[in-house]
Amino acid sequence: MQMEQKKVTVLGAGSWGTALALVLADNGHEVRLWSHSKEQAESINATKKNEKYLPEITLQDNLTAYSDLADSVRNITTIVVAVPTKAIREVLRKLVPCLYQPVTIVHVSKGIEPGTLKRISEMIEEEMPENVLEEVVVLSGPSHAEEVCLRHPTTVVVSSKNLEKAEEIQDLFMNQHFRVYTNPDVIGVEIGGALKNIIALAAGISDGLGYGDNVKAALITRGLAEIARLGTKLGANPLTFSGLTGIGDLIVTCTSVHSRNWRTGNMLGKGKKLNEILEEMGQAVEGVRTTEAAQQMATEYGVNMPITSSLYKVLFENVPPKYAVEKLMSRDKTHEMEDLVNILINE
Amino acid sequence: MQMEQKKVTVLGAGSWGTALALVLADNGHEVRLWSHSKEQAESINATKKNEKYLPEITLQDNLTAYSDLADSVRNITTIVVAVPTKAIREVLRKLVPCLYQPVTIVHVSKGIEPGTLKRISEMIEEEMPENVLEEVVVLSGPSHAEEVCLRHPTTVVVSSKNLEKAEEIQDLFMNQHFRVYTNPDVIGVEIGGALKNIIALAAGISDGLGYGDNVKAALITRGLAEIARLGTKLGANPLTFSGLTGIGDLIVTCTSVHSRNWRTGNMLGKGKKLNEILEEMGQAVEGVRTTEAAQQMATEYGVNMPITSSLYKVLFENVPPKYAVEKLMSRDKTHEMEDLVNILINE
Repeated sequence: MQMEQKKVTVLGAGSWGTALALVLADNGHEVRLWSHSKEQAESINATKKNEKYLPEITLQDNLTAYSDLADSVRNITTIVVAVPTKAIREVLRKLVPCLYQPVTIVHVSKGIEPGTLKRISEMIEEEMPENVLEEVVVLSGPSHAEEVCLRHPTTVVVSSKNLEKAEEIQDLFMNQHFRVYTNPDVIGVEIGGALKNIIALAAGISDGLGYGDNVKAALITRGLAEIARLGTKLGANPLTFSGLTGIGDLIVTCTSVHSRNWRTGNMLGKGKKLNEILEEMGQAVEGVRTTEAAQQMATEYGVNMPITSSLYKVLFENVPPKYAVEKLMSRDKTHEMEDLVNILINE
Repeated sequence: MQMEQKKVTVLGAGSWGTALALVLADNGHEVRLWSHSKEQAESINATKKNEKYLPEITLQDNLTAYSDLADSVRNITTIVVAVPTKAIREVLRKLVPCLYQPVTIVHVSKGIEPGTLKRISEMIEEEMPENVLEEVVVLSGPSHAEEVCLRHPTTVVVSSKNLEKAEEIQDLFMNQHFRVYTNPDVIGVEIGGALKNIIALAAGISDGLGYGDNVKAALITRGLAEIARLGTKLGANPLTFSGLTGIGDLIVTCTSVHSRNWRTGNMLGKGKKLNEILEEMGQAVEGVRTTEAAQQMATEYGVNMPITSSLYKVLFENVPPKYAVEKLMSRDKTHEMEDLVNILINE
């Protein structure tokens, strides 16, 4: 594939930001990778490695790290935002004064803001004035950074209200190993990506308690149903939850030891306390804050979300995990189709 | 839960038949477990163990093994059929002359008959005269026999054209660990259960080739889409594929080393020959015959099934697995929604 060479900035040099920068560099673009840490940026430029997050990967010569935000976005029209959900507003507030041209923001984070209950694209639209924000695109899907860096085949989805813009971003990332689909349903893509972390925490708890694959499959399946129930209520297309950003991402996150959310749940299931685990992890565990937000949304929109509610009790009300799983499994017998049909109905 | 005690016969003393017999015995029913092998039946009665398939499980006193088919179904009105798809017609042909009363058949096998392209409930209706067949019920879902025997929580679905009959079977099996849903969509339940084995073979190949979770998640997601495309064409409700017998069972089968189909794929990916693998396994690998049947169905009904077709080439036309996976990943870029929308349309 021969493609046009562009300049692209990636904000955030965690594992996912770095992996996406590597894909863009593979495609021949001039890539600037911004880190909030001057030390990390210097180390990346000196060693061509991201020692902290992806120590075994060698980065390319057309990828340069920056720690000065203004420098990193000078004359740039496409910015990939790869910072944890809770840092997004802060980073954007620093970014806006550095921009002298309209930019397309591609965000790749997965969360919902507790309190405001905003999706990430909504936060971006709130923080960025119209004269510097050309369009927001979300990139999401089943994709461990480690595997992307090994050039293992990976499929993701880009979504935007503006199809032409989505296709432009599709072309920017697409290559032999990294396959990009488009989907116009921004709400569904963002909700699926955010809420799967809740189910990953629950799946980790089940594994930590010593339950097997049967329980986990039930949690994933019923979890998808409750994500879809809430998502359609918010205006998503129910079909999106059957796609890569719904069930695909849910599977990867629930069945892989790479997932921080799964690992957090696993330690909870084994009896460790939440604050100890979060301290030990060091990196963001998005699912914890997302559970808080989703529990608020379930109440606000009157949607039945039994897995989310059980997890909320485990995380924030000290209910023992084993009790929560058993209670989930012993609810009244029901007709499967009634639950599934509810997905398609905005009651 | 207090329930009525019944007499139930389970035909087939493999791991799944034995596990279901154990669930029924837990519920206080008088259970007869028929084995085609006199030696196996005697061993089960003498040791209270199924040494061959579940050596670590102790069976209950209200579970008795039989090797005489007529004895095993005397005065019985509910028969669970748990034999491999290719043995079903033969067993039913022996069963019919033993029946002096109408029976409900609960089948728990997962396959499609190559050549005739019949689902299992259709094979049962063909083989059993109306005067002895009261109703057919299918029981399916994400359920490893080993975990059911350990009383780990498990969820399954029963499906029948006759809702009352489905609810009767739901009550028969339901207990604290074994949660049973009903779903009226027999076609969707049977197609999902059968075709997931194809995707499990493909997922095993991908793992055997050393690819990671990203590829597997893509295979499962796109696999579900092609199963749903074919299923809706055959008259299934597309929602069924989002439920326990669709995505739920697909996940368990694709991500667990317990699965014979996954293990077969895994060995293929590592370069072993199909006939050697099948010889080594000893037990039925349903997905191989199902791939043949599904490939025929895809042609006959004009449904695009790229994963099935690629797998068919690997299994029956000596195409190297690595080449097949790479070809799958490098198809033209598409809009995800076009594919997903096709699921809901019987073109």
